[in-house]
Amino acid sequence: MQYPPESTTLQIIPLGGVEEIGLNMTVFRYGNDMLVVDSGLMFPEEDMLGIDFVIPDFSYLLENRDLIRGILLTHGHEDHTGALPFVLKEIKAPVFGTALTLALVKQKLIEHEIDDIEFIQIKPRDSVELGNFKIEFIRVTHSIVDGVALGISTPVGNIVHTGDFKLDPTPVDGELMDFHKFSEYGEKGTLVLLSDSTNSEKGGFTYSEKEVRRAFEDIFARSSGRIIISTFASNIHRIQQAVDVAVQYNRKVIMCGRSIVTNSQIALDHGYLKIPQDEWMRLETLKDIPDEQVVIVTTGSQGEPLSVLSRIASDEHKHIKIKNGDTVILSAKAIPGNERSIGRIINRLMKRGAEVIYEKVSEIHVSGHASKEELKLMINLVKPKFFIPIHGEYRQLNQHAKLAEKSGIPKENIFILEDGSILETDGNTCSRSGKVSSGRIFIDGKGITGVEDIVLRDRRRLGHDGIVIIIVGIEKLSKKIISGPDIISKGFMFEEMSAEFLADAKGVVADALENMDEDTITDTTMVQAKIRSALKKYIKNTMQRRPMIMPIIMEV
Amino acid sequence: MQYPPESTTLQIIPLGGVEEIGLNMTVFRYGNDMLVVDSGLMFPEEDMLGIDFVIPDFSYLLENRDLIRGILLTHGHEDHTGALPFVLKEIKAPVFGTALTLALVKQKLIEHEIDDIEFIQIKPRDSVELGNFKIEFIRVTHSIVDGVALGISTPVGNIVHTGDFKLDPTPVDGELMDFHKFSEYGEKGTLVLLSDSTNSEKGGFTYSEKEVRRAFEDIFARSSGRIIISTFASNIHRIQQAVDVAVQYNRKVIMCGRSIVTNSQIALDHGYLKIPQDEWMRLETLKDIPDEQVVIVTTGSQGEPLSVLSRIASDEHKHIKIKNGDTVILSAKAIPGNERSIGRIINRLMKRGAEVIYEKVSEIHVSGHASKEELKLMINLVKPKFFIPIHGEYRQLNQHAKLAEKSGIPKENIFILEDGSILETDGNTCSRSGKVSSGRIFIDGKGITGVEDIVLRDRRRLGHDGIVIIIVGIEKLSKKIISGPDIISKGFMFEEMSAEFLADAKGVVADALENMDEDTITDTTMVQAKIRSALKKYIKNTMQRRPMIMPIIMEV
Repeated sequence: MQYPPESTTLQIIPLGGVEEIGLNMTVFRYGNDMLVVDSGLMFPEEDMLGIDFVIPDFSYLLENRDLIRGILLTHGHEDHTGALPFVLKEIKAPVFGTALTLALVKQKLIEHEIDDIEFIQIKPRDSVELGNFKIEFIRVTHSIVDGVALGISTPVGNIVHTGDFKLDPTPVDGELMDFHKFSEYGEKGTLVLLSDSTNSEKGGFTYSEKEVRRAFEDIFARSSGRIIISTFASNIHRIQQAVDVAVQYNRKVIMCGRSIVTNSQIALDHGYLKIPQDEWMRLETLKDIPDEQVVIVTTGSQGEPLSVLSRIASDEHKHIKIKNGDTVILSAKAIPGNERSIGRIINRLMKRGAEVIYEKVSEIHVSGHASKEELKLMINLVKPKFFIPIHGEYRQLNQHAKLAEKSGIPKENIFILEDGSILETDGNTCSRSGKVSSGRIFIDGKGITGVEDIVLRDRRRLGHDGIVIIIVGIEKLSKKIISGPDIISKGFMFEEMSAEFLADAKGVVADALENMDEDTITDTTMVQAKIRSALKKYIKNTMQRRPMIMPIIMEV
Repeated sequence: MQYPPESTTLQIIPLGGVEEIGLNMTVFRYGNDMLVVDSGLMFPEEDMLGIDFVIPDFSYLLENRDLIRGILLTHGHEDHTGALPFVLKEIKAPVFGTALTLALVKQKLIEHEIDDIEFIQIKPRDSVELGNFKIEFIRVTHSIVDGVALGISTPVGNIVHTGDFKLDPTPVDGELMDFHKFSEYGEKGTLVLLSDSTNSEKGGFTYSEKEVRRAFEDIFARSSGRIIISTFASNIHRIQQAVDVAVQYNRKVIMCGRSIVTNSQIALDHGYLKIPQDEWMRLETLKDIPDEQVVIVTTGSQGEPLSVLSRIASDEHKHIKIKNGDTVILSAKAIPGNERSIGRIINRLMKRGAEVIYEKVSEIHVSGHASKEELKLMINLVKPKFFIPIHGEYRQLNQHAKLAEKSGIPKENIFILEDGSILETDGNTCSRSGKVSSGRIFIDGKGITGVEDIVLRDRRRLGHDGIVIIIVGIEKLSKKIISGPDIISKGFMFEEMSAEFLADAKGVVADALENMDEDTITDTTMVQAKIRSALKKYIKNTMQRRPMIMPIIMEV
C-alpha cells in the first residue's frame, strides 16, 4: 500500500498507549514519510498468566518499513522504549533521543545482541528534518531526567507531542521545562496537541520532586540504624536525592541490584548523576560500615518477587538481613494490581523488625505526571486547534478530554482515539478515517514470537480448574478397547481424596464408550468428543467445575 | 485433650483475622468452657487460582466441640459470618447475634440446607451467661447496622472485643455507639482489649456515613438522566441514604441483583431499612419510568465479573443498557487487588456514555472502620491492662500496636498474635503459650472439602506455563516402543507456530528412550522420570520456560 505522494493530509495513528497504561507508540504519516514516536512495552495484567511483558502489534510498521524516516524517543522509560529491541530486529530506522535515553536503550540492545542501529543523539532545542517533517526537541520535566517533548512541523501545520511530563518548578538538576518553546508554539499556531493523560484524574498540581528530599531528611534525622530506599531504577533524580541526603547525614551509599547499578553507572558516566568520590560503596563492604552510616538503594518497590527487596523481606538475600533498627523506605507509588504483592513485602519486613515507610503513612513519593492544573496550563500555552489525549486508560483520556473542553477547545475538536485509529487532517478539518491493524503481542520467556490469545485462554482455564486427562487404548484392527479408561488429573483436586471421583468418572467414560457404534469408534475425533462431553457434564453437575478435559486415544 | 477444671487461666486464641484481612474468628477458653467470637471467610488472593473463598482451619474447634458454649457474632458481614455454614455442619453450638445479623446468617444456612441450629437473638445491653463467662453486648457503629462489641466477664478479669467499629457521631439510624458502656469497662477495670485494626494506618477520624448523603445530593441535583448506585449489599445505611435522597429528588428506587434484593428485603422486614410505599419498584417497570425519575441500586463495586454492574458495563444486561446521560456512582472503596477489575468497568461504562463517579474523583464513600484518633480514644475509654490488635495484616496490627504504646500501654503488655497463637493470662500476667493447629481451608465449587496446597501449586504452574504431554506406547512383552513419542501441549505455545519445537522435542524424547537399557524400560516410573528430565532441560535451555511435563506410558 503506497500512499499517493501528492496527498495533502497528515495521518496520526496511535499503535499503543491509548486506552491503556504503557505500550506508548504513535505514528505520524504524510505522503511517503512516516515518523514513529516511542516504542513502549506494558507489564502484564493479572490474567495474562505467565507473560513477561506485552508490546504493541507493529505489523503496520512492517508493512510500511520503507517509509519510516526515524524513531523518536521522548525519554528512557520502558513504557516508551521497551518494545524497541523487537521493532529494531525488523526495522532498521535511525533512532533519535537524548544522551541518557540512548544510553539506556543501547544497554538493552546489547542484551538482545542488536548492533546495527544508527543512533542520532539530540539535545533539547535541536531540530532535525526527516522527509516532510521537521522535528524540534523541547525539554520537559518528568520522573526520569533528559526527557523531551516534540514540536513537529508538517506541511499542514504544527504538531506538539508532550511525551510524559510534569511542570516541576524546582527540578533536582535545575533544568526547567522549556515553557518558552511551548509558548512559541502557542504564538505561531499549533494544529494538534497530543498530551499525557496519566494523572488527569488528579486535582491541583503535582508536587516537585524536591519535596521528596524533605521527607528523606526527616527520616534520616531520626534513624540510627541502616536505611534502605527502594525506588524505580530509572528514577535518577530520586537516586540523586538519596545520595545527597546520605552525604548530608554522613552515610555511605550502596547500590544493590543489577538494574539500579547499571542505570546509576550510565547516569554517572553521562553526568546525570553526581556521587562524591568514596561515597558509592560496593555491597561487599556492607559488613564493614557501621549501621548508622549505611544507605542501601535498591529496586523492588512494586513487590516484584525476584527483586532485591523481595528477597530481603523473605530473608533470602545473601548480604542483607533485616534487623531491629533498620528503616525501609518504599519511595514509589503502587502500580494498580501490585498492591497485594507490595503489602506482603511490607508485612514481612515489619515482622523481621524493620520500620517500613510507605506511601500511605508518609510523603516519600511524588508523581512524574502532570495533574489537572498543569494539563490545563499546557493546553493554554500551546493553544492547539485539535486535541488528542494520549497515555492513559479510557477513564484518564476521558477526564483529559473534559479538561480540554473546559479550557476552551470545542468538543468536536477533541479526539479520543483507539489503538490503530487513523486521524486525518488537512490543516483545516480533522476526522477519523478507518483503522490500521493493531493489537498486542505477548512476550514470554526467551522467544520473541508472541503468545496467542488461545494459549492464554488455555492457561486461565488450566490455572483456574486444572486438567483431567483420560487415556484409552484401542486396537486398530478389532476396534476394541484394550486398555483404560485411565484418568489422571492435575490442579483439579487432591488425588488421594478423589478416589471416589476417579471411580465414578471412569464409569462415566466407560458408559460413553460402550454406547458407541463401530463407525464412531473408528473416528478418534468423535471418540474424544464423546468422552469430553460426557465427563464435562458429569463434573459440572456434581462439582460445578470446568477443568480442561483431554482424552487421549491411542491406537495400537 | 481435656483442660484441668481447676485451671485458673484464660486462654485467648485467634483462629483467623490476625495477619490477614478477613477470616475473623477468636476463641476464649477458661477451664472447660469455650466461646467462639465470629466465624468469617476471606475472598481469595490472586494466586489462589480457581478458589471461591477461604475459611479458617477450625480443627481446634472440632477437637473441642463439647466445650463450645456458644458462637457469638459481632455483625453480619461475611468476613465475620461466612465460615458459619461450614462450622455449623460439624458443630451444633448455639449462635448469638442481633436481629439483622441472625437474619442474614439464616438466609445463608437455608442455601446450605442447615436447619438444626439454635439461634439466640440478643440486643445491645443484653447479657448472657455461658459457663464461666458472662457476655454483655455493646452497640457499635459500622458500615452494617446492628453491630455489637462484646464485654466478657471471666474469672480472671474483663475482656473487651470491639468487633468492627468506627465512632460515627451521626449514624444514619440515629443509634449511637454505646460510649457509656465502654467507659464503664474503663472504670471497672479491663484486663484485655482486642480492637479492630483495619484502618490503623489512616490518620484522623473516619467521616460519618452521613457525609455520603451530601455527595449523593450534589450528584442528584445535577443529574437529569438515570442514576445507578453500586455499593456492598450489606451496607444498609448506604442503601437507606440512596433511598432517602431518591425520595427527596422524586426518583423511584429499583434494586437490582440477588444479594441486594435479599438483604434489602431482610432489612426491611426487620425495620432496619425504611422505604416509603410505592418507592421500591420492580426491575421490569424500568422501561415505564422516565429517566430523570430512576435510581438503580446494585452491587458490583469491586468489579466482580458476574455482578450486575459488570454485565451492564459489558452491555450484557437484559434490562439495563447504558446510554448518554446515565450517571454511575461506585460508592465503595477498592479492596486491594480489585483495582484493575474496577478500572476495566469504569472504562467500559464511560465508553458507553455514562458519567462515572468513583472514589478518586469524588467523596462518595466513607469507611466503616475507625481511624487512628478513634482507635486511641477506644484504648483511652477502656483502659485495658493488656492489648491485642486484631483484624488486619501485620502492617495494620503493627501500626495499631504503636498507637496503643503512644496511648500509654506498656510495650510488653501489647501482643501481636498469629493465627493459632495461645495467649494465656491469670489476671496479673499475660504470656504466649504455644499454638493450636490453624491454617486455611480453600473452598472451590460445590465441594466443601478443602483444596490442598499441592493442587494450588499445580494450578499456578499450569496457569503460568501450561502443560506438555508426551505419549509413548510400549509393548508389554517385547519392551519395544510401538507408538510415539507423541507430544501435545496446552497453554504452552501456539501449536501451529511450534511445529519446529514439536519436532525437536520428539527428538529429545526419542533420544532419551533410545539410551535406556531393558531394565529401565520395564520400569514405567523410571521411563517417565527420564523423559521428564530430558524434556525439562531442553525447554528450559531453549526457552527459559517451565511447563508441567507429563509423560504417559501406555503398556499394551
